[in-house]
Amino acid sequence: MTHTATEIHLARRPEGWPVPEDFTTVTTDLPEPGPGQVLIRNRFISVDPYMRGKMNDVPSYTPPYQLNTPMDGGAIGVVEASGAENIAVGRTVLHQGGWRDRALLDATEVRVVDEAQVSSLSAYLNGLGMTGLTAYTGLLDVANFKPGDTVFVSGAAGAVGQMVGQIAKLKGAKRVIGSAGSTEKVTYLTERLGFDTAFNYKDGPVSEQLKAAAPDGIDVYFDNVGGDHLEAAISSMNVNGRIAICGAISQYNATTPPTAPRNLALFIGKRITMTGFLVLDRFDRMKDFIADIAPHLASGKIVTEETIVDGIDNTVNAFLGMLRGENVGKMLVRV
Amino acid sequence: MTHTATEIHLARRPEGWPVPEDFTTVTTDLPEPGPGQVLIRNRFISVDPYMRGKMNDVPSYTPPYQLNTPMDGGAIGVVEASGAENIAVGRTVLHQGGWRDRALLDATEVRVVDEAQVSSLSAYLNGLGMTGLTAYTGLLDVANFKPGDTVFVSGAAGAVGQMVGQIAKLKGAKRVIGSAGSTEKVTYLTERLGFDTAFNYKDGPVSEQLKAAAPDGIDVYFDNVGGDHLEAAISSMNVNGRIAICGAISQYNATTPPTAPRNLALFIGKRITMTGFLVLDRFDRMKDFIADIAPHLASGKIVTEETIVDGIDNTVNAFLGMLRGENVGKMLVRV
Repeated sequence: MTHTATEIHLARRPEGWPVPEDFTTVTTDLPEPGPGQVLIRNRFISVDPYMRGKMNDVPSYTPPYQLNTPMDGGAIGVVEASGAENIAVGRTVLHQGGWRDRALLDATEVRVVDEAQVSSLSAYLNGLGMTGLTAYTGLLDVANFKPGDTVFVSGAAGAVGQMVGQIAKLKGAKRVIGSAGSTEKVTYLTERLGFDTAFNYKDGPVSEQLKAAAPDGIDVYFDNVGGDHLEAAISSMNVNGRIAICGAISQYNATTPPTAPRNLALFIGKRITMTGFLVLDRFDRMKDFIADIAPHLASGKIVTEETIVDGIDNTVNAFLGMLRGENVGKMLVRV
Repeated sequence: MTHTATEIHLARRPEGWPVPEDFTTVTTDLPEPGPGQVLIRNRFISVDPYMRGKMNDVPSYTPPYQLNTPMDGGAIGVVEASGAENIAVGRTVLHQGGWRDRALLDATEVRVVDEAQVSSLSAYLNGLGMTGLTAYTGLLDVANFKPGDTVFVSGAAGAVGQMVGQIAKLKGAKRVIGSAGSTEKVTYLTERLGFDTAFNYKDGPVSEQLKAAAPDGIDVYFDNVGGDHLEAAISSMNVNGRIAICGAISQYNATTPPTAPRNLALFIGKRITMTGFLVLDRFDRMKDFIADIAPHLASGKIVTEETIVDGIDNTVNAFLGMLRGENVGKMLVRV
């Protein structure tokens, strides 16, 4: 017996903004799992900003995507057939076999999760997963957040940003400020997530809007976007300020050199520390993170919005929409 | 009895590069020291890059210079008259009453030093003083230098730069690379100070020269200059690289926004940490620094070149020459 899989392949490397023609949809037949293998029917697929970088053929912290093979990425699904002694059919598994509706993987590549622990399996790709761990370790370990800090987060209505702001509030931030790209998102941040204030970066210069939002300056900046947000944050930074660089989504599709902060000399008098980080270095904090944050996710004290697109055939649209900022919270494909 | 002092005052605030007309030389009569005061005849006066910043009327980590009063700055001199019980005439004192040949100060503002410990009193303004402490703490504490690191330092033939490179070699650097602004300085770095390699940043793009000098990348960048050096260092940085921002002399006289690094997104994949610092936060390390480094200064294992200009009337020329990079090592005025 074979299992039909629909896979999204990278057909060519995008120049600047990806277009649908950069991808192809391929239908393939997967065999029965061999010994130690599992065949998974995916339920949710994650589309993330970092994937844009892997579409370029440049050396980076992970190898670039290969053309005409299934791309990888976070996904969660149910085991349909198993050749692995320790993973029964029907179990839910978290894995990197995304961008497809069925995946045949080694059992060593998947992690069995407790489906009863969450109201939706998507939580394992969002608040309880890498997204949450990114926010948690970036804020607490990289930016060295302390109670009483004023925190600014860009891309605040995105998957990571929404958790950064809420964790900061939960841990005793004096003030949490978010920036986002629409009025709807700004309202979401202040009305739903409890940000003290937020602004739409399209409404005017970020530096001016941030100064108005943080008249006493900021102590921590959690950077998801790069560009002029970073310059503005440096300008508003208090002495001993800390910057965690998590992403630079404003630049991922740039074909010309991005806006660069011209005020780095302020690092000296302000004693600023800026650190880039990757969540893949931070897995040793997963247990602490789950113990600390899972109860707040369960109680609804931390909200993790999702923007869900249905159907494997819409995966490329979901990915492009996420790059354009069409999501509130985590962008996911439901298969 | 009075004591005639020649003082350099700031007459107006420079626009861009300072010119001699921004300063005036004022002769004044100082009275006998009152109780708790000392009258000092200066021997050496320090001129430093940070002083340029204090000539602007902008809030910073120290107050700006006031117009038509003596500027302050590091100096060392001999007590000519004393109203302080604990400081006898003839003692050598280190203090902040620079930019003048005589200074009347409170005893609490001076530190008595041991003139017999050094071959020249200038050492207290150079290797044994704030300059040395800046290099030591910037490299070891801020940039978190580890044996085996490859270190790049800009402004390497300057007061701080020359010590950074030598301390790095002493502490087990794999490779030390310096940049400077003349062939003479490049030769000084490699022939006299033991840098593994050095280049003249005026000979071509810094990024290309650095890549050639450090084919295996760098682990630490000690930044004295800012601008395109910083972009080049980020580009050549290895994973877990560290940047200490000590100065940005290329920008201090800029009237247009400086060159800015457009490659900050590399901070993420490379997990780079960049920290600005001021030596005034680091005085708690002075004892460790002296214990560690003084023997190497005494033995000549660490060389601290000086460029000495004679005469209080040449203080402004010395300062301007230092900004133009005319010094090798520490620029000092001998009074």
